[in-house]
Amino acid sequence: MSDLVPLFQPKSVALIGASSNSKKYGYWTAKSLIENGFEGDIHLISRSGGEIFGHPTYPDILSVPGEVDLAIIAIAPKFILPVMEQCVEKGVKAAIVVSTGFGETGPEGKELERQMLEIARKGNMRVQGPNCMGTYSSAKSMNASIIDLAPGPMSLVLQSGNFGIDINFNAKSRNLGYSCWATIGNQMDMRFHDFVEYIESDDNTKVLLLYMEGLRVESEEDGRKFIQAAQKTAARVPIAAIKIGRSAAGARAAASHTGSLAGSEKVFDAALKQAGVIRVDSPGQLLDAAEAFSKCKPAKGKRIAILTDGGGHGVMATDFAEKFDLEAPVLSDATQEKLREVLMPHCPIKNPVDLAGTPEADMWVFDRCLDILLKDPDVDGVVIVGLYGGYADLSEEFRVLEMDVAKSMTEKIAAADKPVVMQSIYQPQHPECLEYISENGVPVFGEVDAAIRTMGLITQYSDVKKALAEEADGELPEMPADRKEKAAAIIASVRESGRSNLVETEARDILRSYGLDLTQDYLATSADEAAEFYNKIGGKVVMKIVSPDILHKTDAGGVALSIDSPEKAREAYERLVKNGLTYNSDADIFGVMMTAMLPAGVECIIGSSYDSTFGPTVMFGLGGIFVEILKDVSFRVAPVNMPSCRSMIREINGLKMLQGARGTKPCDLEALAEAACIISQLVTELQDIAEVDLNPVFAQEKGLSIADARIILHN
Amino acid sequence: MSDLVPLFQPKSVALIGASSNSKKYGYWTAKSLIENGFEGDIHLISRSGGEIFGHPTYPDILSVPGEVDLAIIAIAPKFILPVMEQCVEKGVKAAIVVSTGFGETGPEGKELERQMLEIARKGNMRVQGPNCMGTYSSAKSMNASIIDLAPGPMSLVLQSGNFGIDINFNAKSRNLGYSCWATIGNQMDMRFHDFVEYIESDDNTKVLLLYMEGLRVESEEDGRKFIQAAQKTAARVPIAAIKIGRSAAGARAAASHTGSLAGSEKVFDAALKQAGVIRVDSPGQLLDAAEAFSKCKPAKGKRIAILTDGGGHGVMATDFAEKFDLEAPVLSDATQEKLREVLMPHCPIKNPVDLAGTPEADMWVFDRCLDILLKDPDVDGVVIVGLYGGYADLSEEFRVLEMDVAKSMTEKIAAADKPVVMQSIYQPQHPECLEYISENGVPVFGEVDAAIRTMGLITQYSDVKKALAEEADGELPEMPADRKEKAAAIIASVRESGRSNLVETEARDILRSYGLDLTQDYLATSADEAAEFYNKIGGKVVMKIVSPDILHKTDAGGVALSIDSPEKAREAYERLVKNGLTYNSDADIFGVMMTAMLPAGVECIIGSSYDSTFGPTVMFGLGGIFVEILKDVSFRVAPVNMPSCRSMIREINGLKMLQGARGTKPCDLEALAEAACIISQLVTELQDIAEVDLNPVFAQEKGLSIADARIILHN
Repeated sequence: MSDLVPLFQPKSVALIGASSNSKKYGYWTAKSLIENGFEGDIHLISRSGGEIFGHPTYPDILSVPGEVDLAIIAIAPKFILPVMEQCVEKGVKAAIVVSTGFGETGPEGKELERQMLEIARKGNMRVQGPNCMGTYSSAKSMNASIIDLAPGPMSLVLQSGNFGIDINFNAKSRNLGYSCWATIGNQMDMRFHDFVEYIESDDNTKVLLLYMEGLRVESEEDGRKFIQAAQKTAARVPIAAIKIGRSAAGARAAASHTGSLAGSEKVFDAALKQAGVIRVDSPGQLLDAAEAFSKCKPAKGKRIAILTDGGGHGVMATDFAEKFDLEAPVLSDATQEKLREVLMPHCPIKNPVDLAGTPEADMWVFDRCLDILLKDPDVDGVVIVGLYGGYADLSEEFRVLEMDVAKSMTEKIAAADKPVVMQSIYQPQHPECLEYISENGVPVFGEVDAAIRTMGLITQYSDVKKALAEEADGELPEMPADRKEKAAAIIASVRESGRSNLVETEARDILRSYGLDLTQDYLATSADEAAEFYNKIGGKVVMKIVSPDILHKTDAGGVALSIDSPEKAREAYERLVKNGLTYNSDADIFGVMMTAMLPAGVECIIGSSYDSTFGPTVMFGLGGIFVEILKDVSFRVAPVNMPSCRSMIREINGLKMLQGARGTKPCDLEALAEAACIISQLVTELQDIAEVDLNPVFAQEKGLSIADARIILHN
Repeated sequence: MSDLVPLFQPKSVALIGASSNSKKYGYWTAKSLIENGFEGDIHLISRSGGEIFGHPTYPDILSVPGEVDLAIIAIAPKFILPVMEQCVEKGVKAAIVVSTGFGETGPEGKELERQMLEIARKGNMRVQGPNCMGTYSSAKSMNASIIDLAPGPMSLVLQSGNFGIDINFNAKSRNLGYSCWATIGNQMDMRFHDFVEYIESDDNTKVLLLYMEGLRVESEEDGRKFIQAAQKTAARVPIAAIKIGRSAAGARAAASHTGSLAGSEKVFDAALKQAGVIRVDSPGQLLDAAEAFSKCKPAKGKRIAILTDGGGHGVMATDFAEKFDLEAPVLSDATQEKLREVLMPHCPIKNPVDLAGTPEADMWVFDRCLDILLKDPDVDGVVIVGLYGGYADLSEEFRVLEMDVAKSMTEKIAAADKPVVMQSIYQPQHPECLEYISENGVPVFGEVDAAIRTMGLITQYSDVKKALAEEADGELPEMPADRKEKAAAIIASVRESGRSNLVETEARDILRSYGLDLTQDYLATSADEAAEFYNKIGGKVVMKIVSPDILHKTDAGGVALSIDSPEKAREAYERLVKNGLTYNSDADIFGVMMTAMLPAGVECIIGSSYDSTFGPTVMFGLGGIFVEILKDVSFRVAPVNMPSCRSMIREINGLKMLQGARGTKPCDLEALAEAACIISQLVTELQDIAEVDLNPVFAQEKGLSIADARIILHN
């Protein structure tokens, strides 16, 4: 059972710091709890004594008769430690600290939080906050916040009380309410992943919304726990999130607002995607998502049909379909034939299906066309746009007709297996028929972009579910059983010599121990040996200086290509060593590495870096100008299975380069995915590793060649 | 004087087809005209006779006493021609045909329009429509539409009556009204450019809004007239436009909706930019633009300061600043010092300036901080976000205080020389202080994204004005005076030989006649001549087959590179001719062109194609993968001056490739701009040319080399 059951389903709560002074938080919280009709016992703790809202008060929690599941603490920081001790003594299972003046104020506050956490952990009491705006749970009609919250299908977890107010205004006007609502404050104990995990088993939640400023991270485990919890919950409940600090300036502002330095935004974005979380930009979009997921059926794919009364609105909807990653394909001949039977010859029927003013003569065309589109197996969802909802203004007859059509349409939509979203220019006036439709399973918007964007969110969630299932069942490439021991031994010897950067031969050995295929390399330690090795390798040979003190081999003149004779190998050896010493006279030169020159291919990069929020990551990109100028790279938090690696590769903008553009043959994408997958396992298993950089990797028609490899350990 | 003065400022109007039947258009239009209090004479024409709304009726327009400036025609198509004849006879200067059943219904309707246009042109009468929803003009309190429109600072020209209704709902809720409002219907006579031109001299218009589905084009002149009219008007009045059909599927849908095939969307987008029109996506954004431009001061640049009460809202605003092409830089030390004096130590002041809850103790911090930001010369605009507007709920004292602060802030904003835009989470509740601010020069939004996007529109217009002024004053590269004659002679000889595609030597001669620098070329017509020419050129030489029947020279094996001796030139000649005849045995081979091999550089493309809406265009892009895979190209409608060409080159995503990425020297951007500018002049002056393709052009540190040139004439 989740630790958060006592938070959202307490049998009894105690409000510590209850007050009859209407300027105090303890007054408003008591009022909320009582007026909202909490289905359990409310105990008010007040040092002032007396009754509050007709309830008796107790001087402290220990005086309360019977068990207390949840304590809501609204007292000044200086009193907090003994009160928490008392809560633990009383056997309280969860506490919400709404008071401010803790970690957010500086080092003293942080120290106080440390002591609070110690008490809570020892007493097995989970704590929400401090510095939060409380909690709401429709399961128990509990409103332990000071905001007017209503029951409904959303759950909302926020890192900002202000956004709680902001979103709630908007939610009220849309008749949307909450199953669970919580503000996490300083995340001293309960963090996003705790809430996300709890929601998985809350059947009342049809959609989970998050407003995030950043994860509180003490170890990379926190970042990963969030991903894992979200993956599990998102398989049942759609999760949509705002995460601020997306831009460089925004990240700087977030750092000065939250006081913490975040990891890379690119990684956070990738982590959300990997976690199955649908990222949106604004409170309005968050509620669009809530409306869609609480009302609509899931979509099987991205192909939408647009039914419009008004040509311009249909075209605009089609434009937005492309913008929001949907398709509005030409409808099948069979469907077009059926539409032609019910529509006048001048009505376009290819998609959009444009009623072109005919409803005035026969309102039922809406219903008939919708029926045809709902039954088309090649249509994954229907968006209705334009003028529906305004005919009632013309006459009473039209008003009745419009309602009848609305009823018939919603019945068909309820019986169908695909989502329907609607836009009407009359929505801002809230006509009766649109209110009816909105209450019966169809989100109705006033603007075309909002309607289409929302349909996009619905299909996005279908993709999320598919990707999560694939990844969960996904395989790993085969890797040698003794990989970890072999690699650990190499790392140990590097550490022993006091280094944290591996030379290329060491990096190659680690990669080989994980099953990656690299050409044989030879470390020549003299010109004679270089000539000897040349004879072993033959053909064209690459030679590179090997020294922990020379990281940028090319800059140091430490690389020679196309060596094609023992004499040239000898000469090159002397030259590279000399260049190396000129570059850095103190360099410890291990020798010169020699390998067969690799066949060319499409230049790629596979790498890993360490993110302060999520730990080791894996990265893929196209090399050369693509990475240098276009920053065309994709990320995942390690470890990942093959399905994630495949989608990571498909994500880059320059994918066509790998698919056989410019007359070349397609590259072996599977080999690239396998290499990325192995790197993700390697950095997960070998926690010493801070950075891996395989650059360039040449992708070929079959397989790939790793032309250069760098590994750096944590300091 | 604009032909549209009688449309928007008529002294007298006649409504032909006035009716007392409330199901008829002629009833509703009469009602609108009369109830809106038209400031002139209203004459109602009705064949049924009698009074309508207490006004007498006339059997026809000829029976009306005195002059009639404007006729509004609401009669069936079959009666239209004699009625238009009568209007002309009466000396009517402008007509609005609101009836439907014309060109939009098919060939018969189109023929009817042709005849109507003939009558109108002969009689010097301009016509709006047919198939439109009428016109509104606040100058004369004339509402010749059936929609309830109010006076205000916007003008709106629409290609869809439905969007007129849609936008008007939204406008009403924002207290925004119109100076001029018109639906252009089938654009038989009056087109977008006529309206745009008129607005230039309408002082009541503070912002012009367009809803476009496509331009009606009979010749490329129509497209260019729109650009020219918009450029002129946009220099005084900001123009914002929706243009639907942006996506491929949307363009298909638009074609089936409007019945016309549009030109390239990329060119339309470029044309709008060139015309100084700010493109938006939705009716909501159109009104955001209207609000911004009717309320705010212009911005001098993109640097905004964000003043927030609520950290999260500040960070979100900063994120959106990047998205909407604004900058939120760290404020100057001087400004930070001043802010520190008025703010508590825990308030972030770098930008965003976060009041962090302090207004509850001292509401005037809003005003003081705003004052400091308005006075900072490094701040081009201020966006206020977060919680302002909700304090009134706490107490009467706070309500008074909040209003006082609102008054003081708006006074400061009125006195300042920069725009201020606001977002408040309380905006949906319309509190008194926010209403006051909104009525006094500050757009107030409920969502952060809308506020920042709107500030982005304000700065975009500053860029537009700057670009228009630069382009108007912009120079052209020097071109030879006899260029047109020389080029025309070449084209004439090509035409004479019955061809429409030029061989490369001809294309090169045309380019040279316009002053472009190409290496000398020699046309060898025998192997001996090839050897001879080699000796003239020396070094490394390129040889290419020259035949109007071989367009793809490389595919035909018709190109030889790096020829470095007379013998090789001789051999190459024989081989290329043989290859050419193998490729196409009927090919008329003019010979083999020989040029010195060009120094390499960054591969670019400069070209021109003919757009069905706007005529000749000019295009610039990076070659190779950039154009093939990333479609990284920019367009302008020809002709353009140097400033437009410079910005066209700066627009491409891969610009860094030309600025010296990867350790190379920056390329000569000015030479690229000059070449593009010359091509734009060339295709404008030589209307025979359908297509120009300089590909590749090698951009070098100084100058450029044109390595291949194709020119194709119109058929």
